[in-house]
Amino acid sequence: MKNYRTFDPCNLLSPLPVVMVSCAEKEGASPNIITCAWAGTVNSDPPMVYVSVRRERYSHGLISASGEYVINLVDENLCKATDYCGVKSGRDVNKFDACALRPMPAKEMTCTPAIAGAPAYLSCKVKQVIPLGSHDMFLAQVVGVEVRDDLFGENGSLRLDKAGLIAYNHGVYQRTADVLGFFGYSVAREDVLKRRMEQYK
Amino acid sequence: MKNYRTFDPCNLLSPLPVVMVSCAEKEGASPNIITCAWAGTVNSDPPMVYVSVRRERYSHGLISASGEYVINLVDENLCKATDYCGVKSGRDVNKFDACALRPMPAKEMTCTPAIAGAPAYLSCKVKQVIPLGSHDMFLAQVVGVEVRDDLFGENGSLRLDKAGLIAYNHGVYQRTADVLGFFGYSVAREDVLKRRMEQYK
Repeated sequence: MKNYRTFDPCNLLSPLPVVMVSCAEKEGASPNIITCAWAGTVNSDPPMVYVSVRRERYSHGLISASGEYVINLVDENLCKATDYCGVKSGRDVNKFDACALRPMPAKEMTCTPAIAGAPAYLSCKVKQVIPLGSHDMFLAQVVGVEVRDDLFGENGSLRLDKAGLIAYNHGVYQRTADVLGFFGYSVAREDVLKRRMEQYK
Repeated sequence: MKNYRTFDPCNLLSPLPVVMVSCAEKEGASPNIITCAWAGTVNSDPPMVYVSVRRERYSHGLISASGEYVINLVDENLCKATDYCGVKSGRDVNKFDACALRPMPAKEMTCTPAIAGAPAYLSCKVKQVIPLGSHDMFLAQVVGVEVRDDLFGENGSLRLDKAGLIAYNHGVYQRTADVLGFFGYSVAREDVLKRRMEQYK
């Protein structure tokens, strides 16, 4: 029997995705980046995601104006920039310049670039804004996806587990490491289990 | 300049939390577990989370009836059970029994137990159900939290990074490993950075 300590109700759900969300007010406007860990997948068909942003944040106004944002996945190379874009405001600093990041055109977006070099990005069109208290949730449909070329295996399959993506865990950035199993592995036949697990080594 | 491959719009946001969500229809009813990776934190104040569940799933009815669920965080010990609870239905099998898991009373819940041994759990009261297509999103307020006793450091601070929590990454379960930084580390003074990073080794 394990013992437990009681906490005041708080946000302890972990690990969370930590992503760099790029946004821009309109065509020709300077783009910004905000880091979000309050982000996730909410629907399979159609593919839908959300990011929650405080109303007073600079990016809240940009996303509200354009109705779109780009979720850039984050690996170790981007970890420090991810932190920086979470603590600084786009009102005070051009984050692309400060982090030596380069914007690149994102699929299906009218004014929002992706971050060149990110492992993958998702172009998102806002469908609904849900006010929740401190944050507004921007529910969006995924309308475009690109993945870095080096993250595909020899047989052409996507190997996102090899990207070394970063998770957010109660105040720290943690690397994702070894693969413990695949969806369905608990009920897989012995030979399938062995063959599949071999490829994740 | 990195090259990219274009995907059809899809759910590629990663890493995602993969959690065991316990639920029950009413007091005295047999509890069930559903595994969700479509889960996340959506608001800081009040603390709010969501899980998205397909309408045809057995647990959808249970959560709808009771208006509550418990999010259990998952470590390596629970990884296989997590997968099992994601592929099997509570209509066909008692998942607590099948996985040799024991329910334990959860703070502030009327009928929903937590999973004994989980690193931590969050008791959640449903506030809003948002239909999105294949899934309904159960937006909920966190009303109770307990964390396993062994996850606290000598000074009493919570060390959730030591739990070895599991993330879901495009079809595989991945362990979270080394800490690359803490919130604010990109702008921290050299001595603070060194002292803080020392404790995560």
